[in-house]
Amino acid sequence: MPEFKVILVEPKYPGNVGSVARVMANFGFSELIIVSSTLPIDSDECRKMAVHAQDILDNAVILDNFRDALGHVDYMVGTSSIESKNDKRHLRNAVMLGDFSSDVYEMDGMVGIAFGREDYGLLNEELMDCDVMLRIPTSEGYPSMNLSHAVGVVLYELFSSIRTPKQPRLADGAEKEKLYEYFDKLLDSINYPEYKKENTKIMFRRIMGRAMLSKWEYHTLMGVIKKSMVK
Amino acid sequence: MPEFKVILVEPKYPGNVGSVARVMANFGFSELIIVSSTLPIDSDECRKMAVHAQDILDNAVILDNFRDALGHVDYMVGTSSIESKNDKRHLRNAVMLGDFSSDVYEMDGMVGIAFGREDYGLLNEELMDCDVMLRIPTSEGYPSMNLSHAVGVVLYELFSSIRTPKQPRLADGAEKEKLYEYFDKLLDSINYPEYKKENTKIMFRRIMGRAMLSKWEYHTLMGVIKKSMVK
Repeated sequence: MPEFKVILVEPKYPGNVGSVARVMANFGFSELIIVSSTLPIDSDECRKMAVHAQDILDNAVILDNFRDALGHVDYMVGTSSIESKNDKRHLRNAVMLGDFSSDVYEMDGMVGIAFGREDYGLLNEELMDCDVMLRIPTSEGYPSMNLSHAVGVVLYELFSSIRTPKQPRLADGAEKEKLYEYFDKLLDSINYPEYKKENTKIMFRRIMGRAMLSKWEYHTLMGVIKKSMVK
Repeated sequence: MPEFKVILVEPKYPGNVGSVARVMANFGFSELIIVSSTLPIDSDECRKMAVHAQDILDNAVILDNFRDALGHVDYMVGTSSIESKNDKRHLRNAVMLGDFSSDVYEMDGMVGIAFGREDYGLLNEELMDCDVMLRIPTSEGYPSMNLSHAVGVVLYELFSSIRTPKQPRLADGAEKEKLYEYFDKLLDSINYPEYKKENTKIMFRRIMGRAMLSKWEYHTLMGVIKKSMVK
């Protein structure tokens, strides 16, 4: 069974942070990371909105930047309400919340779910560090949700999908990093065109992220990639 | 297909009413009834929280009491996060949100979904006028949700029960067969051990099957595999 951390990236309004803490408690989540240069948890508005979830704020981990958060989780999920219409912009090609929440319980380890700024969401470079993009289905007329509502809907869906895993143990964070590293080396070894490399690397991460490899699949795939490298 | 009205019964905080309007727009709902002796929609805080959902506030119907709201709908649903442990207290025996949202689309007519006061919820006499009680599953440790979060989660569930997600164009059967064929050829070209070959081929199909490749991902991956073949 996975565990979860909620990660708020540079939230602007302390009230939203408090509302997030409350809805985390409503759905039984407790671990909060805030990427911020300020201390929203010290604000009165934040404390007021959290109501009976003060301990989540007290125990929140404050980090300087998103990259630091990657070390706290095995699998990072980036959220967005925007999805590219263009298949090539795979960066934002996302899994839908309903599918994700039934699949994620096959995993082990620590899953981080990152929510971006109220106005700009997650930056492209942050999305590139995520294993998978998660999309909350919304009306096309007004897809932009309040931050704490977005968190609430995701946690509700995770809470109501809890079930016991029936699949083999999945590849962990370190294994996936190694797989990605070797895929990158493979591209180098076959003289893959430089201008396409970055996109293809990200695509590989997305495909593997969606497939949620078992440990056995990971080792087999590593074997194929290593053997495929042109010496 | 049913239509829906959101009914807020004596909301105390105008900010919550604005947040409700926004999340209604996020999930494509537009009809709001407010049972209130004050006019929360005139408040700055309410307007601010609604952001781009001002028209929902402008068109909201304001009523004096809950009973008047019954005339506006064919079927009234009362919401609660509390469920009686006592079967005899049938008043609060409720259907769970997940079951309700799949069943309600069998209905026709106007369905009202009533949300009570931030502190006391719906009163017993109001619940008695409802056709059904709807319960949002929450953690036992802290079941009391912020009003607008409760609305958000219910509308998300209703929205995602009607919607068929639009996927990017997926690789078709012939393309996938071609991909598998080239993966097999890759294994041959790298002198992959014969005794492991069959299992590895099947594994590759499983991984790709789970990942549901888009056409674009298919073409990119084909490129990598072709280039990886040892001539």
